[in-house]
Amino acid sequence: MHKLAEKLFPLNRSITGDGVRKTLSLLGENIKDLVIFEVPSGTKVFDWVVPKEWSILSGYILTPGGKKICDFNQNNLHVIGYSAPVNDSISLEDLDKHLYSLSDQPNAIPYVTSYYAERWGFCITHKERALLEEGVYKVKVDSCLFDGNLTYGELIIKGQTDKEVLISTYVCHPSMANDQLSGPVVVTYLAKWLQLLQSRKYTYRIIFVPETIGSITYLSKNISQMKKNIIAGFNVSCVGDDRSYSYLPSRNGKTLSDQVSKHILKWTDPDYVSYEWSDRGSDERQFCAPGIDLPIASIMRTKYGKYPEYHTSLDDLQNVVTPSGLEGGYEVLRLTIEAIENNCYPQIKVLGEPQLGKRGLYPTISTKNSASETFLLTELITWSDGNHSLLDIAEKCNVPIWELYPLIKKLQAQKLLVLEDYVV
Amino acid sequence: MHKLAEKLFPLNRSITGDGVRKTLSLLGENIKDLVIFEVPSGTKVFDWVVPKEWSILSGYILTPGGKKICDFNQNNLHVIGYSAPVNDSISLEDLDKHLYSLSDQPNAIPYVTSYYAERWGFCITHKERALLEEGVYKVKVDSCLFDGNLTYGELIIKGQTDKEVLISTYVCHPSMANDQLSGPVVVTYLAKWLQLLQSRKYTYRIIFVPETIGSITYLSKNISQMKKNIIAGFNVSCVGDDRSYSYLPSRNGKTLSDQVSKHILKWTDPDYVSYEWSDRGSDERQFCAPGIDLPIASIMRTKYGKYPEYHTSLDDLQNVVTPSGLEGGYEVLRLTIEAIENNCYPQIKVLGEPQLGKRGLYPTISTKNSASETFLLTELITWSDGNHSLLDIAEKCNVPIWELYPLIKKLQAQKLLVLEDYVV
Amino acid sequence: MHKLAEKLFPLNRSITGDGVRKTLSLLGENIKDLVIFEVPSGTKVFDWVVPKEWSILSGYILTPGGKKICDFNQNNLHVIGYSAPVNDSISLEDLDKHLYSLSDQPNAIPYVTSYYAERWGFCITHKERALLEEGVYKVKVDSCLFDGNLTYGELIIKGQTDKEVLISTYVCHPSMANDQLSGPVVVTYLAKWLQLLQSRKYTYRIIFVPETIGSITYLSKNISQMKKNIIAGFNVSCVGDDRSYSYLPSRNGKTLSDQVSKHILKWTDPDYVSYEWSDRGSDERQFCAPGIDLPIASIMRTKYGKYPEYHTSLDDLQNVVTPSGLEGGYEVLRLTIEAIENNCYPQIKVLGEPQLGKRGLYPTISTKNSASETFLLTELITWSDGNHSLLDIAEKCNVPIWELYPLIKKLQAQKLLVLEDYVV
Repeated sequence: MHKLAEKLFPLNRSITGDGVRKTLSLLGENIKDLVIFEVPSGTKVFDWVVPKEWSILSGYILTPGGKKICDFNQNNLHVIGYSAPVNDSISLEDLDKHLYSLSDQPNAIPYVTSYYAERWGFCITHKERALLEEGVYKVKVDSCLFDGNLTYGELIIKGQTDKEVLISTYVCHPSMANDQLSGPVVVTYLAKWLQLLQSRKYTYRIIFVPETIGSITYLSKNISQMKKNIIAGFNVSCVGDDRSYSYLPSRNGKTLSDQVSKHILKWTDPDYVSYEWSDRGSDERQFCAPGIDLPIASIMRTKYGKYPEYHTSLDDLQNVVTPSGLEGGYEVLRLTIEAIENNCYPQIKVLGEPQLGKRGLYPTISTKNSASETFLLTELITWSDGNHSLLDIAEKCNVPIWELYPLIKKLQAQKLLVLEDYVV
Repeated sequence: MHKLAEKLFPLNRSITGDGVRKTLSLLGENIKDLVIFEVPSGTKVFDWVVPKEWSILSGYILTPGGKKICDFNQNNLHVIGYSAPVNDSISLEDLDKHLYSLSDQPNAIPYVTSYYAERWGFCITHKERALLEEGVYKVKVDSCLFDGNLTYGELIIKGQTDKEVLISTYVCHPSMANDQLSGPVVVTYLAKWLQLLQSRKYTYRIIFVPETIGSITYLSKNISQMKKNIIAGFNVSCVGDDRSYSYLPSRNGKTLSDQVSKHILKWTDPDYVSYEWSDRGSDERQFCAPGIDLPIASIMRTKYGKYPEYHTSLDDLQNVVTPSGLEGGYEVLRLTIEAIENNCYPQIKVLGEPQLGKRGLYPTISTKNSASETFLLTELITWSDGNHSLLDIAEKCNVPIWELYPLIKKLQAQKLLVLEDYVV
Repeated sequence: MHKLAEKLFPLNRSITGDGVRKTLSLLGENIKDLVIFEVPSGTKVFDWVVPKEWSILSGYILTPGGKKICDFNQNNLHVIGYSAPVNDSISLEDLDKHLYSLSDQPNAIPYVTSYYAERWGFCITHKERALLEEGVYKVKVDSCLFDGNLTYGELIIKGQTDKEVLISTYVCHPSMANDQLSGPVVVTYLAKWLQLLQSRKYTYRIIFVPETIGSITYLSKNISQMKKNIIAGFNVSCVGDDRSYSYLPSRNGKTLSDQVSKHILKWTDPDYVSYEWSDRGSDERQFCAPGIDLPIASIMRTKYGKYPEYHTSLDDLQNVVTPSGLEGGYEVLRLTIEAIENNCYPQIKVLGEPQLGKRGLYPTISTKNSASETFLLTELITWSDGNHSLLDIAEKCNVPIWELYPLIKKLQAQKLLVLEDYVV
């Protein structure tokens, strides 16, 4: 995953344009059946309109001394996203109004975008900005806005039922690691794992979209089918560092996605950070908006906005995102999906306790300690009343749900259980 | 308000009689359309009967030394409420059985009534009682009980709907300030404010009744219409001192009145005192009785029974009830009514987030901090799903509801909201 | 009760056989109308089969020195329950595989059974076991397993309605006191008390069954009537020592039985131990199994498994079970049944507060303190809205329910109340 992220890092992604296309193309080399969609500028999508496409060839500043700084081709964060073209010579005073830097992070180039008003600007480290001298500066951005398309990728992996799990991630940020590349690379590897499974109970709808306008566009085209079929889902963002695990609820807060997320995180990292809906900031804002109301939660490593390198050039693949960080993000999401696949409403088929002894599941000699040996099995049986999901039972027994999978198999082998699927 | 209270102070109010009539007449000079009702003695009202009317001209004791003490015309608390007439000469020992004083408040004349058994008696400061010498005392109460009427006042202020807010206060206590006059004067000024509003969503039913028997009488005549229309209401009592704010719930505890009261008090005085239904003591006992079950809560300053001057001559307009105390009581009730008027179920009209930027409601440049600037607006939007009242939303956002009024106006101006009225 | 327990102590009870029959016969001498049922070996009962009957005449070991030890006729715990017959001479090494003792309780003979696999064995104190010398031992168990019956007792005490309260206890353990005899003797005396009552609202179904297989057998024969009629019930076990009171919930946890148990225990012993459903271990496992779901809770003194003498010869009538321990167990169950009999949904018949004064239930003179005198009565009235059970009201008033019985009578005498029966 880390190597794939390295390949994707230099591309100049934005909410539209060739950076997104190249990113999706590279991801498509790793997962089969990824379909790319293009939606024309000007298309009405709910309360929004698909914007013009943004293209940029170069951008830089020439200092009075002739030095080229803020060179887009060195680091695509140097030019603000959706910057209008400019080609001018101006004083330092005038230039200053178009510069963005962070006084408390003097070595960081900030990530700034201008949606959807025309302006030009450069992002620069505060350290470099402080050294700028009086004089005439040449500013050049060779960009254009034109009627083009918004691009996104979609992968449908069929399951035994039409009921769906949504996995969404975004592909619109330029060269940043945790708050950009961690999402698409982890989702790519989750897709590979899902495609390799012998069978899946649910159908998986996996989408790679530009944030906000992309999810709105996708929803506006697919909302009726999504509302009908989606039983759970996750917005995958910031899943690549090693510092923590986090959970952000759906607006509803009590969906299957929320229940499973909290359960899996509790047993993965008891110290995981639990955010509120008011801490939201990514595409869950659209998926859970009033009237949309999809059951989408977020499982993250360190959340956007909560680590110092966020939205700067310091969010990189060296110090922030690591192979083990990505692995942890992947694994917790894999366990979560596995729990959704295994969740069901077990119902015991006999009245009274089943006679476990004759089935070799209970000791035939009764001493002071015999009950404890089969404790978890009898707990599973007593709650298998058709009203408790396997997840509920795991919570009641205070064990990770995966400890119940082999016991369910044992009871099924004895034809003692009926499993009812989870129904929304 | 304090000046009006001063005018009303000397009148000899009781559950019936001219003291109530004069009080209502003085209030009627301040609010137009107050209608006075008379209900004859003997009328059956639920489990009760309207009592005989009590009239008293004078009452006093002549000491053996010829000194006139306990003179009703000096202080109407000196004769117990509903005292039977007496005209006799008796020993100190016999007199003593008819005297009421408070050993722990030696300078206070207590307030004592005799409902509904015939007896006579005098209330006296413990200090004066201690000085009484042996000898023959002349006792005189020139009172009579006769078939008359119970008197109450009613003011209906029409709103856009038939749904009503009830405001009830009592007018049956003699010369006491917090536990008597604070209620009627604050309600009088609330009525004036309501009458001056350009429009009101709800109709206001404002009543001035004798406590207990008056509210029972009023309910027995109006119960069916009240049960049909009243969506919220308040019993207004003890709203005139400066020492605290208090809340006493309805019997149900979860009505709109309860929700609004707790919200407004929390943001007016975080240290407000929250009582239980078991602490009740005024007309909420009738309004919330089983089978009546109106949504009536109480917002008070310092509650009856909880301040040392309660039910004594020390409950006065000098040391207990103050202009600022009354102003605080008025203001918290005004804010409460305003919250009920503004409460609604807002519903956003677009799917997904609305594009605030194109409406000038969101910054077009995205930096690290842009989200926080419009945080409250987006919180309001995300909860405007038609299932949360504005009050619920204020609680979720942890802001006073009045901070949301201008935001609601902004979104309405953009035609982004539908407002559903509160429905019981 | 303690004397009856002494009589029952020596009998060799098991899940089948004459020990159970003799026990039921002795109990039948104390309560009239106890009916004995016999269910043939081989009868299919839910997932189980009624086992062969076990009969044992003698059992012992002869040491190399000719000493008779582990003599069944001295203490029936010496031979493991359902031991197969044996008649052999073996080495100490071979004997050792058939001996059961407790190293941490060297003076205790453990209680061990072998359900449902054929094996033979002896239970011995660890102290005696340690003294056994090398040599040839003669082992003799004169027992047999044959097609017989499983025996249980049932007593139906008719009430005014068909709705039933179940009281179940077990009769299958040999000579032990708290975890055997305390249950049947306390239930016997509860039955005597119930039979002597002038009338009962509910019908009482009282059963004496072998644990597990007995309750399963009983349920399989009576389940449809039990599910239709039973509104509450208790499994009575370990109610004879003085050390504590305990509660174990039904699987549901919120049945009437649970509510009443917790209420009565709180007011009997505020330090009572509250167990979880996962701590279950007796016939509540069958009564509350999925699909059975009867409202059965357990009230105990010190719970099975939670005292050191449990399932050993030390669980006796001298040091563990005492007359006062049994009396406490009886009394808390009697109060519980009384609460179920008295529970109802009271509804006040007048609108507004009733006028208590004219009925002599309220002081006619109103002073600062008059309200407190009748506080509990007015609390009862205010919650008598038909939606709160008497038990709910006692909880709201924070008083034991029995303090409300006389007040209910007072209000009934005044025709102020309608009492609705508890309905499941």
